[in-house]
Amino acid sequence: MVTLNNPDGSAPCAIDGVWTQELSVIEAAGGPVLHMLRADSPLFRDFGEIYFSVVLPGAVKAWKLHREQSQNLAAPSGLVQVVVYDGRPSSPSMGKVESFLLGRPDYYRLLHIPPGVWYGFAGRSDAPAILANCVDIPHQQDDAFGLDADSSEIPYAWNGR
Amino acid sequence: MVTLNNPDGSAPCAIDGVWTQELSVIEAAGGPVLHMLRADSPLFRDFGEIYFSVVLPGAVKAWKLHREQSQNLAAPSGLVQVVVYDGRPSSPSMGKVESFLLGRPDYYRLLHIPPGVWYGFAGRSDAPAILANCVDIPHQQDDAFGLDADSSEIPYAWNGR
Repeated sequence: MVTLNNPDGSAPCAIDGVWTQELSVIEAAGGPVLHMLRADSPLFRDFGEIYFSVVLPGAVKAWKLHREQSQNLAAPSGLVQVVVYDGRPSSPSMGKVESFLLGRPDYYRLLHIPPGVWYGFAGRSDAPAILANCVDIPHQQDDAFGLDADSSEIPYAWNGR
Repeated sequence: MVTLNNPDGSAPCAIDGVWTQELSVIEAAGGPVLHMLRADSPLFRDFGEIYFSVVLPGAVKAWKLHREQSQNLAAPSGLVQVVVYDGRPSSPSMGKVESFLLGRPDYYRLLHIPPGVWYGFAGRSDAPAILANCVDIPHQQDDAFGLDADSSEIPYAWNGR
Protein backbone atom coordinates (compact mmCIF):
# COMPACT_ATOMS: atom_id res chain seq x y z
CA MET A 1 0.00 0.00 0.00
CA VAL A 2 1.43 3.32 -1.04
CA THR A 3 -1.74 5.27 -0.42
CA LEU A 4 -2.07 8.15 2.00
CA ASN A 5 -4.31 7.45 4.97
CA ASN A 6 -7.46 9.44 5.57
CA PRO A 7 -7.71 11.40 8.83
CA ASP A 8 -9.79 8.57 10.31
CA GLY A 9 -6.96 6.10 9.58
CA SER A 10 -8.74 4.41 6.69
CA ALA A 11 -7.04 3.86 3.34
CA PRO A 12 -8.15 2.31 0.04
CA CYS A 13 -6.11 -0.64 -1.23
CA ALA A 14 -5.08 -1.87 -4.68
CA ILE A 15 -8.28 -3.88 -5.09
CA ASP A 16 -11.38 -1.77 -5.64
CA GLY A 17 -13.56 -1.62 -2.52
CA VAL A 18 -10.93 -3.15 -0.19
CA TRP A 19 -9.96 -0.82 2.65
CA THR A 20 -7.80 -0.93 5.72
CA GLN A 21 -8.21 1.18 8.83
CA GLU A 22 -5.66 1.61 11.60
CA LEU A 23 -7.16 0.54 14.93
CA SER A 24 -6.48 1.94 18.39
CA VAL A 25 -4.74 -0.12 21.05
CA ILE A 26 -5.28 1.48 24.45
CA GLU A 27 -2.73 0.36 27.03
CA ALA A 28 -4.29 -0.41 30.41
CA ALA A 29 -3.33 -2.14 33.64
CA GLY A 30 -4.07 -5.84 33.26
CA GLY A 31 -3.92 -5.78 29.45
CA PRO A 32 -4.70 -3.42 26.56
CA VAL A 33 -8.09 -2.62 25.03
CA LEU A 34 -8.24 -3.25 21.27
CA HIS A 35 -10.75 -1.37 19.18
CA MET A 36 -12.30 -3.14 16.19
CA LEU A 37 -15.44 -1.61 14.67
CA ARG A 38 -17.90 1.08 15.72
CA ALA A 39 -21.29 1.88 14.23
CA ASP A 40 -19.94 5.34 13.35
CA SER A 41 -16.84 4.02 11.54
CA PRO A 42 -16.49 4.97 7.84
CA LEU A 43 -16.11 1.26 7.03
CA PHE A 44 -19.28 0.19 8.87
CA ARG A 45 -22.23 -0.81 6.67
CA ASP A 46 -24.63 -2.78 8.89
CA PHE A 47 -24.41 -5.42 11.62
CA GLY A 48 -25.14 -8.99 10.64
CA GLU A 49 -22.94 -11.12 12.88
CA ILE A 50 -19.66 -11.25 14.77
CA TYR A 51 -17.75 -14.55 14.86
CA PHE A 52 -14.20 -15.82 15.18
CA SER A 53 -12.02 -18.15 13.16
CA VAL A 54 -9.28 -19.94 15.04
CA VAL A 55 -6.35 -20.25 12.62
CA LEU A 56 -3.79 -22.89 13.57
CA PRO A 57 -0.10 -22.21 12.80
CA GLY A 58 0.50 -22.75 9.08
CA ALA A 59 -3.12 -23.67 8.37
CA VAL A 60 -4.65 -22.24 5.18
CA LYS A 61 -8.38 -21.48 4.96
CA ALA A 62 -9.12 -20.58 1.34
CA TRP A 63 -10.82 -19.63 -0.94
CA LYS A 64 -14.08 -17.98 0.09
CA LEU A 65 -16.40 -15.52 -1.65
CA HIS A 66 -19.68 -13.96 -0.59
CA ARG A 67 -22.12 -12.60 -3.12
CA GLU A 68 -23.79 -10.07 -0.79
CA GLN A 69 -21.90 -10.07 2.51
CA SER A 70 -18.99 -7.72 3.37
CA GLN A 71 -16.18 -8.88 5.67
CA ASN A 72 -14.53 -6.77 8.40
CA LEU A 73 -11.48 -8.58 9.73
CA ALA A 74 -9.05 -7.99 12.59
CA ALA A 75 -6.76 -10.30 14.55
CA PRO A 76 -6.79 -9.63 18.32
CA SER A 77 -4.49 -12.61 18.98
CA GLY A 78 -1.72 -14.07 16.80
CA LEU A 79 -0.77 -13.18 13.24
CA VAL A 80 -2.88 -13.95 10.16
CA GLN A 81 -2.11 -13.47 6.47
CA VAL A 82 -5.17 -12.58 4.38
CA VAL A 83 -4.98 -12.75 0.59
CA VAL A 84 -7.62 -11.10 -1.61
CA TYR A 85 -8.14 -11.81 -5.31
CA ASP A 86 -10.33 -9.69 -7.56
CA GLY A 87 -12.11 -11.83 -10.14
CA ARG A 88 -14.90 -9.34 -10.87
CA PRO A 89 -15.05 -8.76 -14.64
CA SER A 90 -16.41 -5.23 -14.20
CA SER A 91 -13.77 -4.16 -11.64
CA PRO A 92 -10.96 -1.71 -12.44
CA SER A 93 -8.66 -4.00 -10.43
CA MET A 94 -9.80 -7.26 -12.08
CA GLY A 95 -7.09 -9.93 -11.80
CA LYS A 96 -5.19 -8.27 -8.96
CA VAL A 97 -3.98 -10.15 -5.89
CA GLU A 98 -3.22 -8.35 -2.61
CA SER A 99 -1.80 -9.78 0.62
CA PHE A 100 -2.23 -8.36 4.13
CA LEU A 101 -0.89 -9.24 7.55
CA LEU A 102 -3.25 -8.77 10.49
CA GLY A 103 -2.19 -8.94 14.14
CA ARG A 104 -0.52 -7.14 17.00
CA PRO A 105 1.68 -5.26 17.46
CA ASP A 106 2.61 -4.18 13.94
CA TYR A 107 -0.52 -4.99 11.97
CA TYR A 108 -3.42 -4.31 14.28
CA ARG A 109 -5.88 -2.91 11.76
CA LEU A 110 -9.26 -3.54 10.18
CA LEU A 111 -9.45 -5.10 6.72
CA HIS A 112 -12.72 -4.45 4.86
CA ILE A 113 -13.47 -6.84 1.97
CA PRO A 114 -16.49 -6.06 -0.21
CA PRO A 115 -18.79 -8.73 -1.61
CA GLY A 116 -17.76 -10.45 -4.83
CA VAL A 117 -14.00 -10.79 -4.27
CA TRP A 118 -12.20 -13.99 -3.28
CA TYR A 119 -10.27 -14.15 -0.03
CA GLY A 120 -8.47 -16.68 2.11
CA PHE A 121 -6.22 -16.65 5.14
CA ALA A 122 -3.37 -18.50 6.82
CA GLY A 123 -1.98 -18.73 10.34
CA ARG A 124 1.40 -17.00 10.54
CA SER A 125 2.15 -17.13 14.27
CA ASP A 126 3.59 -19.93 16.42
CA ALA A 127 0.38 -20.13 18.47
CA PRO A 128 -3.21 -20.36 17.17
CA ALA A 129 -4.46 -16.98 15.94
CA ILE A 130 -7.94 -15.51 16.38
CA LEU A 131 -9.40 -13.79 13.32
CA ALA A 132 -12.52 -11.79 14.19
CA ASN A 133 -15.04 -11.12 11.43
CA CYS A 134 -17.85 -8.59 11.83
CA VAL A 135 -20.05 -9.05 8.76
CA ASP A 136 -22.92 -6.90 7.57
CA ILE A 137 -25.38 -9.73 6.86
CA PRO A 138 -25.82 -12.89 9.02
CA HIS A 139 -24.24 -15.94 7.38
CA GLN A 140 -26.45 -17.58 4.78
CA GLN A 141 -25.29 -20.77 3.09
CA ASP A 142 -26.53 -19.68 -0.35
CA ASP A 143 -24.46 -16.46 -0.18
CA ALA A 144 -21.17 -18.33 0.31
CA PHE A 145 -18.96 -19.85 -2.39
CA GLY A 146 -15.71 -21.75 -2.13
CA LEU A 147 -12.72 -22.91 -4.15
CA ASP A 148 -9.87 -25.22 -3.11
CA ALA A 149 -6.78 -23.43 -1.78
CA ASP A 150 -4.77 -24.71 -4.77
CA SER A 151 -7.42 -23.89 -7.39
CA SER A 152 -5.98 -22.89 -10.75
CA GLU A 153 -8.66 -20.21 -11.05
CA ILE A 154 -6.76 -17.93 -8.65
CA PRO A 155 -3.15 -16.90 -9.41
CA TYR A 156 -1.78 -17.30 -5.89
CA ALA A 157 0.25 -20.18 -4.47
CA TRP A 158 -0.34 -20.49 -0.73
CA ASN A 159 2.43 -23.02 -0.27
CA GLY A 160 5.03 -20.83 -1.88
CA ARG A 161 4.84 -17.95 0.62
CA MET B 1 -27.46 -21.40 37.53
CA VAL B 2 -30.22 -23.94 38.03
CA THR B 3 -32.41 -22.61 35.24
CA LEU B 4 -33.58 -24.58 32.25
CA ASN B 5 -32.22 -23.38 28.94
CA ASN B 6 -34.52 -22.03 26.25
CA PRO B 7 -34.55 -23.83 22.88
CA ASP B 8 -32.19 -21.17 21.49
CA GLY B 9 -29.66 -21.95 24.24
CA SER B 10 -30.31 -18.76 26.21
CA ALA B 11 -31.03 -18.82 29.94
CA PRO B 12 -31.80 -16.13 32.52
CA CYS B 13 -29.41 -15.88 35.47
CA ALA B 14 -29.86 -15.02 39.16
CA ILE B 15 -29.46 -11.30 38.49
CA ASP B 16 -32.41 -9.72 36.72
CA GLY B 17 -31.63 -9.00 33.07
CA VAL B 18 -28.41 -11.04 32.98
CA TRP B 19 -28.54 -13.87 30.45
CA THR B 20 -26.21 -16.49 29.10
CA GLN B 21 -26.47 -18.19 25.73
CA GLU B 22 -24.62 -21.32 24.65
CA LEU B 23 -22.56 -20.59 21.54
CA SER B 24 -21.74 -22.91 18.65
CA VAL B 25 -18.19 -24.07 18.01
CA ILE B 26 -17.94 -25.48 14.51
CA GLU B 27 -14.94 -27.77 14.04
CA ALA B 28 -13.11 -27.15 10.77
CA ALA B 29 -9.80 -28.05 9.17
CA GLY B 30 -7.24 -25.46 10.24
CA GLY B 31 -9.16 -24.44 13.38
CA PRO B 32 -12.75 -24.11 14.59
CA VAL B 33 -15.23 -21.32 13.88
CA LEU B 34 -16.66 -19.73 17.03
CA HIS B 35 -20.02 -18.04 16.89
CA MET B 36 -20.61 -14.97 19.07
CA LEU B 37 -23.61 -12.77 18.23
CA ARG B 38 -26.02 -12.47 15.33
CA ALA B 39 -28.49 -9.70 14.57
CA ASP B 40 -31.29 -12.28 14.90
CA SER B 41 -30.15 -13.54 18.33
CA PRO B 42 -32.66 -13.18 21.21
CA LEU B 43 -29.97 -11.34 23.20
CA PHE B 44 -29.18 -8.80 20.44
CA ARG B 45 -30.43 -5.25 21.03
CA ASP B 46 -28.49 -3.00 18.65
CA PHE B 47 -24.93 -2.67 17.35
CA GLY B 48 -22.78 0.03 18.87
CA GLU B 49 -19.25 -1.33 18.85
CA ILE B 50 -17.14 -4.48 18.99
CA TYR B 51 -13.84 -4.37 20.89
CA PHE B 52 -11.54 -6.67 22.82
CA SER B 53 -9.99 -6.61 26.26
CA VAL B 54 -6.73 -8.47 26.67
CA VAL B 55 -6.77 -9.94 30.20
CA LEU B 56 -3.35 -10.93 31.54
CA PRO B 57 -3.13 -14.00 33.80
CA GLY B 58 -4.37 -13.07 37.27
CA ALA B 59 -5.15 -9.47 36.31
CA VAL B 60 -8.39 -8.00 37.68
CA LYS B 61 -10.29 -5.32 35.74
CA ALA B 62 -13.08 -4.07 38.01
CA TRP B 63 -15.52 -2.51 38.71
CA LYS B 64 -17.37 -1.05 35.74
CA LEU B 65 -20.95 0.10 35.21
CA HIS B 66 -22.71 1.61 32.21
CA ARG B 67 -25.85 3.66 32.62
CA GLU B 68 -27.23 3.01 29.12
CA GLN B 69 -24.98 0.47 27.41
CA SER B 70 -25.51 -3.33 27.45
CA GLN B 71 -22.53 -5.70 27.37
CA ASN B 72 -22.32 -8.93 25.35
CA LEU B 73 -19.23 -10.87 26.36
CA ALA B 74 -17.48 -14.01 25.09
CA ALA B 75 -13.90 -15.26 25.36
CA PRO B 76 -12.57 -16.74 22.11
CA SER B 77 -9.12 -17.26 23.65
CA GLY B 78 -8.15 -18.08 27.24
CA LEU B 79 -10.36 -18.21 30.33
CA VAL B 80 -11.96 -15.16 31.99
CA GLN B 81 -13.97 -14.93 35.22
CA VAL B 82 -16.70 -12.28 35.09
CA VAL B 83 -18.43 -11.18 38.30
CA VAL B 84 -21.69 -9.22 38.24
CA TYR B 85 -23.16 -7.30 41.19
CA ASP B 86 -26.68 -5.93 41.25
CA GLY B 87 -26.82 -2.62 43.09
CA ARG B 88 -30.08 -1.43 41.52
CA PRO B 89 -32.49 -0.46 44.31
CA SER B 90 -35.53 -1.29 42.17
CA SER B 91 -34.28 -4.73 41.10
CA PRO B 92 -35.76 -8.00 42.42
CA SER B 93 -32.17 -9.30 42.65
CA MET B 94 -30.75 -6.21 44.42
CA GLY B 95 -27.60 -7.12 46.36
CA LYS B 96 -26.90 -10.37 44.52
CA VAL B 97 -23.44 -11.33 43.23
CA GLU B 98 -23.00 -13.84 40.42
CA SER B 99 -19.78 -15.25 38.96
CA PHE B 100 -19.29 -16.69 35.47
CA LEU B 101 -16.43 -18.37 33.65
CA LEU B 102 -16.06 -17.62 29.94
CA GLY B 103 -13.76 -19.50 27.57
CA ARG B 104 -13.26 -22.65 25.57
CA PRO B 105 -13.86 -25.52 25.72
CA ASP B 106 -16.20 -25.73 28.70
CA TYR B 107 -17.50 -22.18 28.97
CA TYR B 108 -17.79 -20.91 25.42
CA ARG B 109 -20.98 -18.88 25.80
CA LEU B 110 -22.34 -15.36 25.56
CA LEU B 111 -22.90 -13.35 28.74
CA HIS B 112 -25.39 -10.49 28.40
CA ILE B 113 -25.15 -7.78 31.07
CA PRO B 114 -27.85 -5.09 31.08
CA PRO B 115 -27.15 -1.44 31.88
CA GLY B 116 -27.05 -0.43 35.53
CA VAL B 117 -25.31 -3.43 37.06
CA TRP B 118 -21.67 -3.56 38.18
CA TYR B 119 -19.28 -6.03 36.57
CA GLY B 120 -15.62 -6.84 36.52
CA PHE B 121 -13.38 -9.58 35.20
CA ALA B 122 -10.15 -11.43 35.84
CA GLY B 123 -7.74 -13.52 33.77
CA ARG B 124 -7.97 -17.18 34.79
CA SER B 125 -5.75 -18.86 32.18
CA ASP B 126 -1.97 -19.24 32.01
CA ALA B 127 -1.79 -17.19 28.81
CA PRO B 128 -3.39 -13.79 28.14
CA ALA B 129 -7.11 -14.14 27.45
CA ILE B 130 -9.18 -12.23 24.90
CA LEU B 131 -12.58 -10.99 26.10
CA ALA B 132 -14.73 -9.77 23.22
CA ASN B 133 -17.46 -7.24 23.98
CA CYS B 134 -20.18 -6.39 21.46
CA VAL B 135 -22.06 -3.45 22.97
CA ASP B 136 -25.31 -1.88 21.82
CA ILE B 137 -24.16 1.77 22.03
CA PRO B 138 -20.69 3.06 21.04
CA HIS B 139 -18.55 3.85 24.10
CA GLN B 140 -19.25 7.27 25.61
CA GLN B 141 -17.18 8.47 28.53
CA ASP B 142 -20.17 9.96 30.35
CA ASP B 143 -22.01 6.61 30.25
CA ALA B 144 -19.21 4.75 32.09
CA PHE B 145 -18.66 4.59 35.84
CA GLY B 146 -15.95 2.86 37.88
CA LEU B 147 -15.10 1.67 41.38
CA ASP B 148 -11.82 0.25 42.66
CA ALA B 149 -11.60 -3.56 42.59
CA ASP B 150 -11.44 -3.61 46.41
CA SER B 151 -14.26 -1.09 46.94
CA SER B 152 -16.29 -1.74 50.09
CA GLU B 153 -19.44 -0.85 48.13
CA ILE B 154 -19.47 -4.28 46.45
CA PRO B 155 -19.54 -7.48 48.56
CA TYR B 156 -17.01 -9.46 46.54
CA ALA B 157 -13.34 -10.07 47.30
CA TRP B 158 -11.38 -10.58 44.08
CA ASN B 159 -8.27 -11.71 45.86
CA GLY B 160 -10.03 -14.41 47.82
CA ARG B 161 -11.08 -16.51 44.81
